Amino acid sequence: MTSVRLDGIGELVTNDPRAGIGSLGVVLDASLVVADGAVVYAGPQRTAPAADRLVDVGGRAVLPGFVDSHAHLVFAGDRAVEFAARMAGRRYETGGIGTTVAATRAAPDELLRANLARLVAEALRQGTTTIECKSGYGLTVADEERSLRIARELTPETTFLGAHVVPPGTDPDSYVDVVCGPMLRACAPHARWADVFCDDGAFDADRTRVILAAAAGAGLGLRLHANQLGPGPGVQLAVEHGAASADHCTYLSDADVDALAASGTVATLLPGAEFATRSPYPDARRLVDAGATIALATDCNPGSSFTTSMALCIALAVREMGLTPAEAVWAATAGGARALRRDDIGRLREGTRADFVVLDAPTHMYLAYRPGVPQVAEVWHGGRRVVPHWSGAAPVR
Amino acid sequence: MTSVRLDGIGELVTNDPRAGIGSLGVVLDASLVVADGAVVYAGPQRTAPAADRLVDVGGRAVLPGFVDSHAHLVFAGDRAVEFAARMAGRRYETGGIGTTVAATRAAPDELLRANLARLVAEALRQGTTTIECKSGYGLTVADEERSLRIARELTPETTFLGAHVVPPGTDPDSYVDVVCGPMLRACAPHARWADVFCDDGAFDADRTRVILAAAAGAGLGLRLHANQLGPGPGVQLAVEHGAASADHCTYLSDADVDALAASGTVATLLPGAEFATRSPYPDARRLVDAGATIALATDCNPGSSFTTSMALCIALAVREMGLTPAEAVWAATAGGARALRRDDIGRLREGTRADFVVLDAPTHMYLAYRPGVPQVAEVWHGGRRVVPHWSGAAPVR
Repeated sequence: MTSVRLDGIGELVTNDPRAGIGSLGVVLDASLVVADGAVVYAGPQRTAPAADRLVDVGGRAVLPGFVDSHAHLVFAGDRAVEFAARMAGRRYETGGIGTTVAATRAAPDELLRANLARLVAEALRQGTTTIECKSGYGLTVADEERSLRIARELTPETTFLGAHVVPPGTDPDSYVDVVCGPMLRACAPHARWADVFCDDGAFDADRTRVILAAAAGAGLGLRLHANQLGPGPGVQLAVEHGAASADHCTYLSDADVDALAASGTVATLLPGAEFATRSPYPDARRLVDAGATIALATDCNPGSSFTTSMALCIALAVREMGLTPAEAVWAATAGGARALRRDDIGRLREGTRADFVVLDAPTHMYLAYRPGVPQVAEVWHGGRRVVPHWSGAAPVR
Repeated sequence: MTSVRLDGIGELVTNDPRAGIGSLGVVLDASLVVADGAVVYAGPQRTAPAADRLVDVGGRAVLPGFVDSHAHLVFAGDRAVEFAARMAGRRYETGGIGTTVAATRAAPDELLRANLARLVAEALRQGTTTIECKSGYGLTVADEERSLRIARELTPETTFLGAHVVPPGTDPDSYVDVVCGPMLRACAPHARWADVFCDDGAFDADRTRVILAAAAGAGLGLRLHANQLGPGPGVQLAVEHGAASADHCTYLSDADVDALAASGTVATLLPGAEFATRSPYPDARRLVDAGATIALATDCNPGSSFTTSMALCIALAVREMGLTPAEAVWAATAGGARALRRDDIGRLREGTRADFVVLDAPTHMYLAYRPGVPQVAEVWHGGRRVVPHWSGAAPVR
């Protein structure tokens, strides 16, 4: 297969501290060589090997593709009116997640597939080369199964979230029996992960334990919605069960922070949700200072965070959550990969997937420094340029 | 000239309350007909006149192009490192506006022109069809003159801001004499407006009055940087002098709000600056409720708000400043036009310029509902489609 060498990389973010400066492993005046969908070389241009084809990126920054490790993308309908009412300080009584569940159940497969494909393509255009996708708007055996079956067509990172909410009018314990029994059996073949929404109004500690144990028994990796709406047992349960990630982490005790720091469980922070619900942001600084590993993800869903923009999440993490631009970029790439227990993405070094973005900017700092501006010029996915350069103009100097 | 009719507009925002629903004058199932660079018809599809060419926009929303009425785009260099230091809570002693002034003075015309063209194109791709551009990084007669001369090549909305700061080592009164004398004479031919940064550390009330009077005498319209860093006389001076706009308006007394509400002076709010400096946001709700006219603009500049995204400003105005999505969209279109005293832009009705955007979304609400996502599918400027559709996928349903 043809090898390609990108020269003229002003700043290459490798996320390999041995390869360059700081935790991002930054190499200046760098080259990246890719072949057969993988990285062959990531380092200084002066020592780069030859390749069949040369591309000059004109001093731009190159970084690993974003890894969005938390998204809910199989659904129908929107909730724009509910959003506007919430922003105006009004309660929106006839709405919430039930709206999306009803629309999703009523939708033909083709509509769910088209909506999902659109969001995955939209994310890819913005530099997201890996995206996790949860079920959770079906809440019946058949609707959860088809959600995951469709999701699996577009991403390998699928998560069974039958335990999103207890469907109205259903006894919680009976629903947990369904989730752990026929629903899990139907869904497990299409899922890599299982997730539970452990919070007031969703699943309590005992029910969460039961579901996590059943999912682990079915061979699924674990992740958890934890401590989003208030303090609770979610983070401790995630750590106890060896979950790959505890997600949201808005309300943490010192013991929660310590447990995350001492564990292999990533704290996945989702600032799009706080933005769209006008909630307090999680304290990323506290987690990083304690030694916890963090990821940033979009939580893309029609109710509480309808964004696919990892760049916005980075800007919000810097503005609102105390991260440096470098820490935020790491969390949105290598952190997401850790949250999905993947070694082949989130970094650029020999052997990793050739998933990367070329920014219309000289450094990774611009993602926070220029909020809202589409700065992803090119996206390469598995060594192929899937989103071509859309500007052509030289960066501001 | 060929006329073009856009059919299948799911929601047409006209900003003409007589034409449709609410202050946005929304027409559902609409058509827009353009010819000779102007709007010929904006209304229901069933009564639309015939045209030479038909375009179907597939149920998408169409709204007037954004009017960004406050930007500083003629400069060289960036201040990303200063930004990162500020976000980390560190003072960055050797920096500030002086960095940009030095880089701008040292830059050849071609570099200033290339940087400006890049930012104007970047803004246009995001739906900004009119953009104001200030000088203010030259601060000598020659450098201010060339800044405006270059700006005028790319936008008619040029603003002389020699009174941005007093250059270090210069006596303030002597500098005001230069601004009002040779600098104004050199710059006025290239400028439509004059602006003064009236705040602590910049120009006080007396000096602001002198500069405004001189600029008015030279035939320039007036606008003012007012009440950004603290309470002060800026808003009152803007209203007294009949300025088109008082910009920032972060720290307002009740008397300031009343003065704005009783005047023809628009309050231009710049949430990108508060975002990038971690400052309190202005209270847009209070201004609207008092009856003041507001505009939203980017304040794009390399120091305190390096964004060209009007969509981000809309999302921030809804999240942080108490506006509804409709109010924010109005402020970013019709409000900006008022702040520039323009009748031919910011609305879509017979006779206005055919400057509009097609959103990859069914309603204007999506600009706040989907923060950070590039949703401007097409941009039409003077009746020509200058930015083609970049997705092609149907909106999520």
